[in-house]
Amino acid sequence: MVASPRSSVRSAEMAKLTQLIDNEVFRAYATYAVIVLLKMMLMSLITAYFRITRKAFVNPEDTAVFGKGESAKKNLRTDPDVERVRRGHLNDLENIVPFLGIGLLYALSGPELSTALLHFRIFAGARIVHTFAYLIPLPQPSRGLSWAVGYTVTILMAYRVLKTALYL
Amino acid sequence: MVASPRSSVRSAEMAKLTQLIDNEVFRAYATYAVIVLLKMMLMSLITAYFRITRKAFVNPEDTAVFGKGESAKKNLRTDPDVERVRRGHLNDLENIVPFLGIGLLYALSGPELSTALLHFRIFAGARIVHTFAYLIPLPQPSRGLSWAVGYTVTILMAYRVLKTALYL
Amino acid sequence: MVASPRSSVRSAEMAKLTQLIDNEVFRAYATYAVIVLLKMMLMSLITAYFRITRKAFVNPEDTAVFGKGESAKKNLRTDPDVERVRRGHLNDLENIVPFLGIGLLYALSGPELSTALLHFRIFAGARIVHTFAYLIPLPQPSRGLSWAVGYTVTILMAYRVLKTALYL
Repeated sequence: MVASPRSSVRSAEMAKLTQLIDNEVFRAYATYAVIVLLKMMLMSLITAYFRITRKAFVNPEDTAVFGKGESAKKNLRTDPDVERVRRGHLNDLENIVPFLGIGLLYALSGPELSTALLHFRIFAGARIVHTFAYLIPLPQPSRGLSWAVGYTVTILMAYRVLKTALYL
Repeated sequence: MVASPRSSVRSAEMAKLTQLIDNEVFRAYATYAVIVLLKMMLMSLITAYFRITRKAFVNPEDTAVFGKGESAKKNLRTDPDVERVRRGHLNDLENIVPFLGIGLLYALSGPELSTALLHFRIFAGARIVHTFAYLIPLPQPSRGLSWAVGYTVTILMAYRVLKTALYL
Repeated sequence: MVASPRSSVRSAEMAKLTQLIDNEVFRAYATYAVIVLLKMMLMSLITAYFRITRKAFVNPEDTAVFGKGESAKKNLRTDPDVERVRRGHLNDLENIVPFLGIGLLYALSGPELSTALLHFRIFAGARIVHTFAYLIPLPQPSRGLSWAVGYTVTILMAYRVLKTALYL
């Protein structure tokens, strides 16, 4: 028995829908979104590393391993390196969240693959440079410029989404 | 030669999949998601503006332009206006991230267009009022109320997503 | 008149596209994404609760209800409980944002339903344990371990997305 056209269509659709990820622009988005998110997640590990090596904690329960009383209490302090990583982490959140949302919509707006790749690559590159510029730290305007490049790419993608999809 | 039904279906699907954005509810989501994200991104520029005009920086490398030593060091300080914008920015992150995630799933749950538009418009309006209420600042409860309106809209959309999609 | 195969396909697609949410893995993602976002949103209410009961505010306009002058000014202060909830909230943002992005792409990469459910359930469970560990607070390493479990699940999903979709 031959399946009716309708039902074969339906099962093909079901397969495809779970594989939006077959589309090349969407795959490119997925790749770079994961890269910048992993980079952002790395900031948590760097913060933990500095907190432990600098012995600079914020929660009393985190210092229990150093014993009780004064010896533990003196590890409840802020450290410039820890604070620097935390600022870099927050800056990531402020900039990567817009990229995730706007980039997803941009990928679904049907851009040319090469144009989309260019946007994603520049954004990811800029955020990686930004992290090095923040943590080393490099002299300004390295950090400022890398921030501005990522910001501008996001604005350009937002413009394309609004031009394609605007429905107020 | 006529294309087989199967292959014409396949290519139509590919086209459509890259254009989820053809769906009106999804276009409305895309529009308002971009609007609130751009609004949130604006907070970075306002922070930079206040840091520069108030000469209130947090990273030593940012003050190098003011020379070295004491003259630069005195620009490493917190400023109430800068801190206010930063709190507004963090509040945006805390509220716009849930909107992005829940709103996307809500848009895919097949709501009425008019209902969806109502949710998106109220959320975006509430967040814009919240920003003015925070930065001017307006007397309370302006900020509290605008926050609560956006929060409630997000909860209502979350309820609809769970009702439609619940799969524990 | 019988509809042409093409047009019946088209309308079926339109219906389906708005109902990506029919796919079981996607429904599971939607459910757990909403759960962790609602949990994160709860942190705002807990912060507000502690600010009001501890009378610890950060914005001068928020203390107007306590009168003017010194009596109101003394409520502009930080409180350890408020700061603890805020740290928990920020930690949620840092960890739930990657889950939202990576989890969405993972759900679209066509994993086994049972495997996907396992990832989503463990992540959501770990974040709920993390919140209790932070707010009670439980002695370490409860908070550290629950954080690490959620982090690891996110990394595993990221690996699967890159394996399926990598397009550099």
